[in-house]
Amino acid sequence: MTVEEKHAVMLDETHAPDRRSWVESANDPGSDFPIQNLPFGVFRRRGSDEPPRIGVAIGDAIADVRVLVEQRHLDAAGPAGGCALCGESLNAFMTQGPEVWNTTRRAVATLLDADEPALRDNASLRTQAIVAQRDAEMCLPAVIGDYTDFYCSIHHATNVGSMFRPDNPLMPNYKHLPVGYHGRASSIVTSPTPVRRPFGQTIAADADTPAFGPCRLLDYEMEMGFFVGPGNPLGTRIPLAAARSHIFGMVIVNDWSARDVQKWEYQPLGPFNAKNFLTSISPWVVTLAALEPYRVDGLARGADDPPVLDYLRPTEPAGFDVTVEVLIASAAMRDKGLDPVRVSTGNFQDMYWSITQMLTHHTSTGCNLRPGDLLASGTISGPTEDARGCLLERTWRGQHPIALPDGTERKFLQDGDEVIMRAAATGAGARIGFGECRGIVMPAE
Amino acid sequence: MTVEEKHAVMLDETHAPDRRSWVESANDPGSDFPIQNLPFGVFRRRGSDEPPRIGVAIGDAIADVRVLVEQRHLDAAGPAGGCALCGESLNAFMTQGPEVWNTTRRAVATLLDADEPALRDNASLRTQAIVAQRDAEMCLPAVIGDYTDFYCSIHHATNVGSMFRPDNPLMPNYKHLPVGYHGRASSIVTSPTPVRRPFGQTIAADADTPAFGPCRLLDYEMEMGFFVGPGNPLGTRIPLAAARSHIFGMVIVNDWSARDVQKWEYQPLGPFNAKNFLTSISPWVVTLAALEPYRVDGLARGADDPPVLDYLRPTEPAGFDVTVEVLIASAAMRDKGLDPVRVSTGNFQDMYWSITQMLTHHTSTGCNLRPGDLLASGTISGPTEDARGCLLERTWRGQHPIALPDGTERKFLQDGDEVIMRAAATGAGARIGFGECRGIVMPAE
Repeated sequence: MTVEEKHAVMLDETHAPDRRSWVESANDPGSDFPIQNLPFGVFRRRGSDEPPRIGVAIGDAIADVRVLVEQRHLDAAGPAGGCALCGESLNAFMTQGPEVWNTTRRAVATLLDADEPALRDNASLRTQAIVAQRDAEMCLPAVIGDYTDFYCSIHHATNVGSMFRPDNPLMPNYKHLPVGYHGRASSIVTSPTPVRRPFGQTIAADADTPAFGPCRLLDYEMEMGFFVGPGNPLGTRIPLAAARSHIFGMVIVNDWSARDVQKWEYQPLGPFNAKNFLTSISPWVVTLAALEPYRVDGLARGADDPPVLDYLRPTEPAGFDVTVEVLIASAAMRDKGLDPVRVSTGNFQDMYWSITQMLTHHTSTGCNLRPGDLLASGTISGPTEDARGCLLERTWRGQHPIALPDGTERKFLQDGDEVIMRAAATGAGARIGFGECRGIVMPAE
Repeated sequence: MTVEEKHAVMLDETHAPDRRSWVESANDPGSDFPIQNLPFGVFRRRGSDEPPRIGVAIGDAIADVRVLVEQRHLDAAGPAGGCALCGESLNAFMTQGPEVWNTTRRAVATLLDADEPALRDNASLRTQAIVAQRDAEMCLPAVIGDYTDFYCSIHHATNVGSMFRPDNPLMPNYKHLPVGYHGRASSIVTSPTPVRRPFGQTIAADADTPAFGPCRLLDYEMEMGFFVGPGNPLGTRIPLAAARSHIFGMVIVNDWSARDVQKWEYQPLGPFNAKNFLTSISPWVVTLAALEPYRVDGLARGADDPPVLDYLRPTEPAGFDVTVEVLIASAAMRDKGLDPVRVSTGNFQDMYWSITQMLTHHTSTGCNLRPGDLLASGTISGPTEDARGCLLERTWRGQHPIALPDGTERKFLQDGDEVIMRAAATGAGARIGFGECRGIVMPAE
């Protein structure tokens, strides 16, 4: 079934491509946040000291969900849902599960519908409940208890593996399980927090002993992440068929990486300091409900690929047709008024393992997930050079630098570079965008 | 300086070896919790629905710190310290730093001193404030934001490395940095929570394809862990000279490990599902203040060992002379009334890297630590066979099984086995014990 055909089979009215909002900017075909999207985030009015509050993005504005609950416009969410929507993070709402999420989503869509006067025609309520995005500061959408990063692009794993282990690029386990590792939750920030070039221990190619100093091979990794909804008790497993109902929604993840630190430290226990200095996410969580029309089969397995073990065998499509792209703007480019330059474009459906497989494998030992936990995909790379989602691959360890329009070239990131990641599902008249995940590289200090 | 000499140089009166408490059981030479120790924990009265509260262990009892604060017997902790002591976890108290910790410690010691009548002679207050440990359930001492596990025993790293990589047992990085990896915070529990044998993906030695089923090679790892006190802002480093003031205290850690899962999954990103199904800790956090007389130089570096880089070069002793031991009791042994059998004895001062080096290296990229974060040492193994802190090493991958007094032998853990870990600093008339970290293996389900 094509995206267009899927889209034609409406799951509910929230996906109708001709639906319009009275927030005019949401009807712009280029907007990431039409009424069909309605991602959730946490914000505060810029410069205010109000506690963080939950909002829904609509066009270039935010609907202040707490105001809508307090003014009794979201009673459809139910008492528990309403209470969960008035906190300082999305964790309590994530706990509620798909029924409350979807009821709330439909209620918000109704309020923002072009034909619905309740909020549209109430100037006083609108003033309280609608905030321009430019007047808001975005916060982390959830208190992230644990963060896990996977390695689900076979193109990425093969490329990186062939650089570090030419004889043995893909480990024997790769096609049998989604390889993952535990990441650092404390250093997850929202776009556009700058990244400070980290110090670290590295060893030069011709040196006998390592040195401690600023990272020289700073990289980004373009990933998608998803937030856990209802968790599972310790000692229980979430079967694959139930996994989707435990996933609230998705964000862009930039897994900043210090490649020289990584190369020296990563054996035998995996990346540690090379990754823990910062991880950036886009602030708006796009719900699985909004992405439902773009749910597709994932990467087709090759005829020679081994069969997947029962506990990871898909019973439904769990890929997502989401285009991802990375752009870079150097400080000089910004000074000269030059637009950021696109360095890669990929698609999230090219992953070898799906988000439901990641979640099910993670809990297969009985490991408990908690609402608000973040799981990320690993670098999203496709089969072509321009679909490689990090500079390590894109420049092939610096052997093929990227030319920037300011006349310089990049093997890895320089101080002042801004990395801009975008993602969107498109097709059949709607654009379900993720906004941006941005960050400027600050010099080491 | 020997432990005895160190002990003679009293840091303050809390270490006086002849000091006694009016809680008589604390004066038993075999008690882990004399008045010189005073570890902090979180408990609730067994069977009650009271919120968890902070306590201090004394002999076979607990002093209910919240009651003491509310009754104005801990005013010395100051308003912030007092407030921090009335919560449901130690996080706020951990945030306060050494001055408040030590002031509080001295005040608690005074209240429990044999010569101090305030609590001793007030039967009503004593009834409220003193709880028998057998009447309490222990909770996690802190909300653990992030958990990191290191690999700091060179004996352990060499032993394990020689099994998996005979030609290359110790990686080139080992003597230059404390190798670590991020662990799973959600599945940390307190002793004596049972461990459920996990399911997992493994591959038999003679098989082409893996299978999913109950772990067959379940193991423990005897470790020490420490809780972070005041954290550091993202983007800043904690220099080694300041590291000690960021550490609140220590616990025993059992890093349960599924060796067959680990072997199959761990490359290239490190252990994941092999470790995330459960990690057990002892419930009482022994403060660095209590351990101060046992702070010693760590493992002496060999003449051929490379110099340590400046940022990790010690300026003071940061090893701890703490004896650790592991005992096992099978279900049959318990049925027959047989005592647990000791399978290893080691010492925490045999680690190649110290707790302050772990903390400083962790933050060397600017990674932020938060109060209540847990960092663990990795398996504590010594140079001799009977000092090997996990079954993988102790039985040399099952080649040398351990005989149990019930007539069976162990290569790895069987269902029904109870693993009991103990640790204590001893010498000069005081015993600073950690209590126990226990857990029984439950069958997979």
